[in-house]
Order: sequence, then structure tokens, then C-alpha cells
Amino acid sequence: MNKGVLYGVGVGPGDKELLTVKAVNILKSVDVIAVPFSGNGEKTAFNIVSEYVGGKEITECFLPMIKDRKKLDEYYDSAANNIEGYLKKGRNIAFITLGDVSVYSTYMRIDKRIAERGYKTIMIPGVTSFSAAAARLNISLCEGNETLSIIPASAVNSDNISAEGCTKVIMKPGKSIEKIKDLLKKHELYEKSCMIERCGMENEHICSNLDDVDENASYFSIIIVKG
Amino acid sequence: MNKGVLYGVGVGPGDKELLTVKAVNILKSVDVIAVPFSGNGEKTAFNIVSEYVGGKEITECFLPMIKDRKKLDEYYDSAANNIEGYLKKGRNIAFITLGDVSVYSTYMRIDKRIAERGYKTIMIPGVTSFSAAAARLNISLCEGNETLSIIPASAVNSDNISAEGCTKVIMKPGKSIEKIKDLLKKHELYEKSCMIERCGMENEHICSNLDDVDENASYFSIIIVKG
Repeated sequence: MNKGVLYGVGVGPGDKELLTVKAVNILKSVDVIAVPFSGNGEKTAFNIVSEYVGGKEITECFLPMIKDRKKLDEYYDSAANNIEGYLKKGRNIAFITLGDVSVYSTYMRIDKRIAERGYKTIMIPGVTSFSAAAARLNISLCEGNETLSIIPASAVNSDNISAEGCTKVIMKPGKSIEKIKDLLKKHELYEKSCMIERCGMENEHICSNLDDVDENASYFSIIIVKG
Repeated sequence: MNKGVLYGVGVGPGDKELLTVKAVNILKSVDVIAVPFSGNGEKTAFNIVSEYVGGKEITECFLPMIKDRKKLDEYYDSAANNIEGYLKKGRNIAFITLGDVSVYSTYMRIDKRIAERGYKTIMIPGVTSFSAAAARLNISLCEGNETLSIIPASAVNSDNISAEGCTKVIMKPGKSIEKIKDLLKKHELYEKSCMIERCGMENEHICSNLDDVDENASYFSIIIVKG
């Protein structure tokens, strides 16, 4: 019997229409959809694809957001075991992930495990949250000689926030928001910053300045700092 | 009479299936497709969408890659005049652009001009070339606390190429390739770099090391530097 193939499918930032044609075709063609969930109650990636996967077998992969690396590895091993169970039987499976599959996605650790076990894995790129946010705000992220830095909130510092000729995208500010606001003020970038929560999802919210933003902002937020 | 709407549509990196569902819907719904061309003979963006726009009016916008800012502004003014001609008559028009519309696209200068003249403009995000390249290479661009820098070849320097904990994507190395190779060697990043030419297009080529790469590489190339 032939082994199944694992597809890592980026399903875009939230708007169902921002799936690619390729993602839709693969979701329709595979036998099983693997849906990551972190236990916070939202199944955002699944909501995006739900209309394309009617009647298909769904398998959930519990991948909580925890810092304990050993425990996390156990969850990923367990998800990989689950997926391998299908592949062994020759069934193709699509693991869905928000945004693009190569940008801060939960998929890569699954891909690594499954590839190491001798299965074929294929990544399907998607629209990133920052591209969607820029389009929503009707702004460019970079033009001409400008650079673009994508920085997770945990890695923001004086050096990377103050680089010149560079647009910065700060991903998922969450609990670090006050520290980030202070840094932006210190480097005179506060007025050049805006935030977008839940871009393309229900309850989308654009904050054209950061005054009203606090740590209660959605997990799905990004800050764009121009210049 | 109602005015028409201008859509700036990112059509993805080359693979026809990497158009979004939204891009396809808009291309089918508008009256006119505006196609930028630079005079180098390739109409890459148009090739991607050709199967979705059969029978529609096509208008070409000549936007050459020149450095003379004044001359360039004249070409953009002229393209904007052409587009405004349709919008005035209440016709909706989609201006197509490779990759994502907010990342180094020709569209933004058109959007600015048309918006200033009082028309509604809407941006449709697309899959970037670097997301597609990472997927093709089966690698992540960033995980955890890593940052990601997108750097046009003209802006590469010792500082941005050597930042730690950061994946760098160098866009369109072209004539700067020898300078970039020297910088990568100097910072011991040469072995961590690979290049992909024409990702998802005809004649795609992956260079897993840069030894064979010279300035004759395709205009549509990107280098990915891990770490």
C-alpha cells in the first residue's frame, strides 16, 4: 500500500476568500483534515476552511501554547503519531495553519517529525497576517530600498525597533504591549504606529493610534511601524 | 453616474493556483484588467491570471524600471490617467501585481494617485515570493523568537545581513550578487544561504548553494539566509 502525503496548508489570515485556489483544491482532495487547537476555545483556522471540508474526517491536534519545551515536544510527538496513523493507511491529510505556513506556524514541528519518519510532506504557502493588515489599511509595507522586519513581540528591542529605512511589523503584542509602547515613544515612532486586531475576522478593529490599546487586545493583533 | 472602483490585486508569485479565491472573484467581476509591463518582454502577472479574464478588456500600463524619478513619475501619471479614464465612466478596474500588493509592488504609486483624485481604491493581498520559496524549500522562515528581515538587494549591508536570530530574505539580487556573496562569506553565512529562481514559474531553479550563481540569474530570484 502507498503511504499517504502530509500537506501543511496556510489558510490565510482569517477572511475565507483569502484562501488560495491551491489550498481549496488540496482541502477538497485529501482524506482527512488535521486541525490544531490550543485550548483557548477558538478554532480560527477551522472556521476559515469549514465550507470546503464538509463531510470529511476531521482530527484534532492539541498543541497548547506553553513554554515547557519538554512537555511541548510530547504534545507534538503525540500529534505526529496521530497523523502518522492516517498516513500509514495511505490516507492523505492536510494540516491547516493560520496565515502562511512558513511564518510562525505550528506546522513546522509536525512537518519535521513526519518527514523524519519517511513520509512525503508538502507545504502550501498562504497570505500572511501582515500582508492582509497592510491591504486593509491601504498602505505599503515596503517600497524601493526600504526593508521590512517581522518581529515577534518577545524579541522587540531598541536595536530592531529603531532601524532606519525599515517598516517593522510586531506580531502578537499581547502582554508586552506596554513595553512596546514605551520603546516606540523612546524612539519617536509612537505616532508612526498603528495596530490592527483580528484582521479579516469577526470583530476586526483598527487602532490608528496606540493610546487606547492595552494588554486586553486580541491575541490576533499586529502593530505596523512605518519608518 | 457612479464612479468605478480601483482594485490593486496581488496575484501571487507565479503559480496560477496561488491566486486567492478573492483575487479570482474580483478579476471575474471587474470590467477591465490593468496590466503593468516594464518593456522587458515578460508579462508574468498577466500570464498568472490569463485563464480568469478571458474576453475582458485589457489595458496595458507601461512602467519601465528606470531610476530617473521625474521620468518615472511621468509614466505613473500617464498610467493613472489611463485608469482614471475607465473609473470616470463607472467601470471597475483591477490592476494586477506579482506577489503581494504591499511588498515592493508597482501598484502603490498608482493607488496614491487615484485615491488623491477622489476614487475608491481597495487592495487585495497576495502570497509573497518569499512565502512561496520557503514552502518550495520545505523550510520555515521564522519560528518562536526569531525575526524575519526582507531586504532588497540594493539595501544589503553588514549590519542587516549579520543580525542574529534572524532569517534574511534578499530580494532580486541580480547585478549585486557578487557583493552579496562577499558579504555572506565575511559573516560566515554563505553556507547557510540558498537561492531560488522563478519560484513557481516555468524554469524554476533551486540553488542549494551559491557557488554556481552569477549575475545572469533571473530577475525573479530570492536568497534565503537562515540564521
